[in-house]
Amino acid sequence: MFPAFAILAFPLLQGDPVDRILAAALGSGKAYATLRDLCQVAPHRLSGSEGAERAVLWAKEAMASAGLESVRLEPCSVPKWERGKVASLEVIAPAESRATWLPVLALGGSVATPSSGIEAGVIEVTSFEDLAAKGEGARGKIVFFDRPMDPKVLDPFEAYGGAVDQRGRGAVEAAKHGGVAAIVRSMSLAVDDVPHTGAMHYEDGTQRVPTAAVSTAGAERLSALLRAKPDLRLRLRLDCADRGEVPSSNVVGEIRGGKLADEIVLVGAHLDGWDVGQGAHDDGSGCAEVLEAMRLLRALDLRPARTLRAVLFMNEENGTRGARAYREAHRDEVARHVLAIETDRGGFAPRGFSTDAAGDALAALRAIAARLEPAGASQLRAGGGGADVSVLQQDRVPLMELLAEPSRYFDVHHSERDTLDAVHPRELELGAAALAVMAFEAADAGPELSRQTPR
Amino acid sequence: MFPAFAILAFPLLQGDPVDRILAAALGSGKAYATLRDLCQVAPHRLSGSEGAERAVLWAKEAMASAGLESVRLEPCSVPKWERGKVASLEVIAPAESRATWLPVLALGGSVATPSSGIEAGVIEVTSFEDLAAKGEGARGKIVFFDRPMDPKVLDPFEAYGGAVDQRGRGAVEAAKHGGVAAIVRSMSLAVDDVPHTGAMHYEDGTQRVPTAAVSTAGAERLSALLRAKPDLRLRLRLDCADRGEVPSSNVVGEIRGGKLADEIVLVGAHLDGWDVGQGAHDDGSGCAEVLEAMRLLRALDLRPARTLRAVLFMNEENGTRGARAYREAHRDEVARHVLAIETDRGGFAPRGFSTDAAGDALAALRAIAARLEPAGASQLRAGGGGADVSVLQQDRVPLMELLAEPSRYFDVHHSERDTLDAVHPRELELGAAALAVMAFEAADAGPELSRQTPR
Repeated sequence: MFPAFAILAFPLLQGDPVDRILAAALGSGKAYATLRDLCQVAPHRLSGSEGAERAVLWAKEAMASAGLESVRLEPCSVPKWERGKVASLEVIAPAESRATWLPVLALGGSVATPSSGIEAGVIEVTSFEDLAAKGEGARGKIVFFDRPMDPKVLDPFEAYGGAVDQRGRGAVEAAKHGGVAAIVRSMSLAVDDVPHTGAMHYEDGTQRVPTAAVSTAGAERLSALLRAKPDLRLRLRLDCADRGEVPSSNVVGEIRGGKLADEIVLVGAHLDGWDVGQGAHDDGSGCAEVLEAMRLLRALDLRPARTLRAVLFMNEENGTRGARAYREAHRDEVARHVLAIETDRGGFAPRGFSTDAAGDALAALRAIAARLEPAGASQLRAGGGGADVSVLQQDRVPLMELLAEPSRYFDVHHSERDTLDAVHPRELELGAAALAVMAFEAADAGPELSRQTPR
Repeated sequence: MFPAFAILAFPLLQGDPVDRILAAALGSGKAYATLRDLCQVAPHRLSGSEGAERAVLWAKEAMASAGLESVRLEPCSVPKWERGKVASLEVIAPAESRATWLPVLALGGSVATPSSGIEAGVIEVTSFEDLAAKGEGARGKIVFFDRPMDPKVLDPFEAYGGAVDQRGRGAVEAAKHGGVAAIVRSMSLAVDDVPHTGAMHYEDGTQRVPTAAVSTAGAERLSALLRAKPDLRLRLRLDCADRGEVPSSNVVGEIRGGKLADEIVLVGAHLDGWDVGQGAHDDGSGCAEVLEAMRLLRALDLRPARTLRAVLFMNEENGTRGARAYREAHRDEVARHVLAIETDRGGFAPRGFSTDAAGDALAALRAIAARLEPAGASQLRAGGGGADVSVLQQDRVPLMELLAEPSRYFDVHHSERDTLDAVHPRELELGAAALAVMAFEAADAGPELSRQTPR
């Protein structure tokens, strides 16, 4: 036998950083334990809520425990919207259809209905063009937006992008055509009875009508019923409320760089989440990956040339106020951000990264991603970052996002199903490892990643 | 608006085969429905069981329904081993440890214990070398093999390969050193209380001692207890039995090729499964992917130059008798097999393929895999096929296996957790699509895939 003890005693202090990160993440990673903590401490952490503030304090403590430097809260102002306790969509007529189950969740930002509800006929549409083509048909009606995410689109995020206008603008478009409320088929590829919430927006000068998401199976029942009974009448009841603005915070911590310490690689996720489920995938997993990536680098004593800055943003879901406050607060150093990486696509097995970097920087990032081939995460495709770091696009900060296996994401996204048990420990640790590798190697890369290099 | 109806009416009869296969699989795939059927008809289908024969008849019918040609059963002889009703591992002494929960499953092929059980002390070892080094220490003892799958190994299949010798040969090695039984830590990366069965082998001339797998959490409890109480005594009870050999069948169907119809691309999976759970991932998913790949090609009227032959093998789990019978029965045409693709790594999202093809054939297969980049399944790495098609390696048939996201596989493998609900519909349909694309394009490829091309 060989004298193994000498190398086994300090296995983490030797060898290639990529190998060390992967071995530490898979052998003794803490991303899942971190996520479990967050889901326990603050399962509901919608911006402006008590849960969100508990999450802020938890994240600050987690960064300090991970050994990060300059850990601090950075202020931002956020909307405070409350779901309330009532959300129902009932068939009123014909009487024989009253038992039809139509589970709904208010969309985030919706106004309430009167406490007696809004009772009206229904018009089903598949797009804003379809609604416009129906002219006066929507007047006085509840507008039912029922265009599914297209399962034939290979990338579920692209399918989401092809349907989510109904959720974001459905209420505005309904009101413009005289509608009294908007019901939107949930953004999910699964046909089941779990409604999915998400952000919606009103527009000045247009009537603010209440809006809710119905489960996909509920949408299919409603659609079938409408074909049989076009005179169907529904009653929608919601008691959600806008409570104005309240102060909140981003949570920031760093690993100070070496000889290029003034240059910054940002690694971010969002700390807020919707007020259903636990936001385990969206974006508790991202927070856990960021915290674990930083913890791994500290534990392995890996200090890159550039400064690595972890940012857990507040209010990605309904305002990106945290991201915008970050940009304002760091205006003087934004030009020294050489890369801003976000993780906000769920804690599934990592597949690679998207980026809008170009030229030498892109080549350098591609070479780093290639190191993750044995982990199945070597893809590097053209794209951008998540919603938070995208605020820095106007400053020409190169953006990047961690890509994860996407098939299951929209089954749970923004719903009561987005809980810890939907996250697989090994997949999450691998995600944290992939993020740590990319963040460290990018922060430690040569001048091709510095901003003076033409993009 | 453009006159969409004309192209929408016949979308499946136009365009690139790869695009058509992917769109059909995601839009109206039936792989998951097929798997649901199989799990309903024959959840337990261990070779030699009634369930296995139900699965054979079901598969023949499924091939006929999918429009395959030359659908037939091909005979093979298989072992018939029965689990029985008793499997327990109890702490007998010290008395205060009797409540320790040690869930076990007999390993497939094990002999029974006497009905009163085998009571003995325990020796824990981590390898055959460790066992040998302990010399006489194992005599009269139950040998407890407790080397975990290494979580630091990136590929879980490689980690499995690094531990499964304990399951396959543990009983033989235990007996050689005077052990009276072998207990093996379950092959899983998850630490939980679900034991995982699997094949084991005896050797002529060595005492046949009973052997069982204990859950990973049970293994950790037992190990901790042994450190505190080295004189611990256990009682193992198993009433499994070997019932000799019985006739069974492979199920075969084809899509007859065009101008190269004498050349064969084999697409296979195994129809048998263990008698716990439903074999949903292992290898119900593979069967569903093979059946669906062939159904998709028939539904799209895609007939390749070479003949595509679907083979659902019997007895992969404990003998590969079906694979060997296939080789014997097709000896005269084995040289005309240009590629043998197996799918037996679970119904998770496809990542790509492994293959031992070389030269021009490899380049051609790589180009086909690259077409699956938008589906995330473009990996083509050096490797082989699954256990069934590997029987054809001696005939120099190029082998290939579909690779799937591996993180969750060993959580369920060979256990009661391997049920339909552990399979994600979209991931399975994507797997079927990836298989259909590879099978069709390989069967339709040019002379670089024919066997006259040097490998």
